[in-house]
Amino acid sequence: MECHFLGTGSGIPSKSRNVSALVVRFLQQKVQWLFDCGEATQHQILSTPVTLSRINRIFISHLHGDHIFGLPGLLCSRSAQGAVSELTIYGPSGLQEYIETSLSLSQSYLGYSITYVIVEEGVVYSDDSVTVEALSLDHVMPSFAYKITECDKPGTLQVDKLKELGIEPGPIYQKIKNGEAVTLSNGLVIESSEFLSEPIKGRSIVIAGDTRVITKMAAFSSGVDLLIHEGTFSSDKAEHAEKFGHSTILEVANLAKEAKVKKLILTHISSRYVDKEEELLLEATSVFEQSIIAHDYMIYRFE
Amino acid sequence: MECHFLGTGSGIPSKSRNVSALVVRFLQQKVQWLFDCGEATQHQILSTPVTLSRINRIFISHLHGDHIFGLPGLLCSRSAQGAVSELTIYGPSGLQEYIETSLSLSQSYLGYSITYVIVEEGVVYSDDSVTVEALSLDHVMPSFAYKITECDKPGTLQVDKLKELGIEPGPIYQKIKNGEAVTLSNGLVIESSEFLSEPIKGRSIVIAGDTRVITKMAAFSSGVDLLIHEGTFSSDKAEHAEKFGHSTILEVANLAKEAKVKKLILTHISSRYVDKEEELLLEATSVFEQSIIAHDYMIYRFE
Repeated sequence: MECHFLGTGSGIPSKSRNVSALVVRFLQQKVQWLFDCGEATQHQILSTPVTLSRINRIFISHLHGDHIFGLPGLLCSRSAQGAVSELTIYGPSGLQEYIETSLSLSQSYLGYSITYVIVEEGVVYSDDSVTVEALSLDHVMPSFAYKITECDKPGTLQVDKLKELGIEPGPIYQKIKNGEAVTLSNGLVIESSEFLSEPIKGRSIVIAGDTRVITKMAAFSSGVDLLIHEGTFSSDKAEHAEKFGHSTILEVANLAKEAKVKKLILTHISSRYVDKEEELLLEATSVFEQSIIAHDYMIYRFE
Repeated sequence: MECHFLGTGSGIPSKSRNVSALVVRFLQQKVQWLFDCGEATQHQILSTPVTLSRINRIFISHLHGDHIFGLPGLLCSRSAQGAVSELTIYGPSGLQEYIETSLSLSQSYLGYSITYVIVEEGVVYSDDSVTVEALSLDHVMPSFAYKITECDKPGTLQVDKLKELGIEPGPIYQKIKNGEAVTLSNGLVIESSEFLSEPIKGRSIVIAGDTRVITKMAAFSSGVDLLIHEGTFSSDKAEHAEKFGHSTILEVANLAKEAKVKKLILTHISSRYVDKEEELLLEATSVFEQSIIAHDYMIYRFE
């Protein structure tokens, strides 16, 4: 799993930071999920390994322009590039009207269908490998955080141990890997758990849209591997942040500490901090050492 | 007057060409007009001397996404940068609905007012220095060309000649410059035309949106200083061009020759011609020598 930061600025694009967008690549499943889609997200994608046809889900935090104005163009280009696979778009009410009006007035016809899901708090998506939950945030309009939680995976097969017992590779290995009990031809019963390492813990990421820091976030992001949270302003702009529904770096660092997350990535950085990222990082790490200030094209890889 | 080519590709953005946008800078008046506004036009502008607050008129050729999806973001950024001056947007019916829906659903509030003008053939704008006329084109949806015609300017004052007559600089010079007849204190009547060089011919530019080459264009662009016309395909794709309502380079070069324009700039180049621009240029110049293939960030300056 990889997180590709495509736009890490706030409000309007600058030369160094585009407006919000983030792609989570699931390397095994070969699918990619897009979180927010500010203008020129498709342009940013041109310089990454992300491919539009592999994006099968788009999660929108809120409807401010710097989070959605890239959608119509990206959807059209996905079609122009030949994608025919269905796309599901999750977001607050109003998103479908925005997209459909843009596509219809521009007479854009897509070669694939879109399913729209109006997001409310709780589980918004789930399959046998991953769950996505939404949390309502505190911004100047409805805004959501999304938590991706991978299911735990069975441990790896301890092949050496099996071979010691004279059990050679074959369909039986798959059965053991699946956790099934197996009876050998000599009557010996194999308990699969004895031949598997500890289950591999699924990874978890919280991706929060624009918001003031909220109390519920500590529980929502408790212990996650990665918290990606906006940190639009430094702490001396706390009043400003409060007024416009944003967070300061310091507030988020305190949240990360409280929630005991493993890693914090701060994004949605105001353009006033161009070339002052070092100061923001110091503010964050003074409270929570495992902090990173995002930049455009940054890739965060899970091991 | 300068033309800044911000997006010279067609359909979808590529690394080398963005989607359509062009700014005409009127250096004397210090205003800038934007023609079409594909996604990321505001991003392109970041690397030019164009400033959003100085854009006071936007002319849209047609409503395809690659010509309008940059509008909502650009309008918001113009406001965020503090512009309060009125903006007038000219384009086909539907444009206002597209912009207002995008701004309203994203809760974007602009610090200036917008006047919308639904374009029809004929004069769409005129002041004492310039006129803009529209011509209906032949695309797969309503599409327009715009012709900017500067008014002729009075010739320059021949100061030496006046001084020879003992007429010293003063308010009288301005009167002569304005073309007024002046009676001197000694009773001598000055015919201003005798002390002015030939009137300075106003420049003229035609900027055509997506279209098949149409018969009426030769008359519309007859003798203009600059014809900016789409040339999406090379001549071997004539059938393709016809089907999708576009022009080939050769067709446009023939038009330019027939219309006796002074210069032709071909734009809206399909991404299939990356690194093959030389071939397109050869196709154009084989018929009309004064041809240029546009590229992003190209500036065309009138002398």
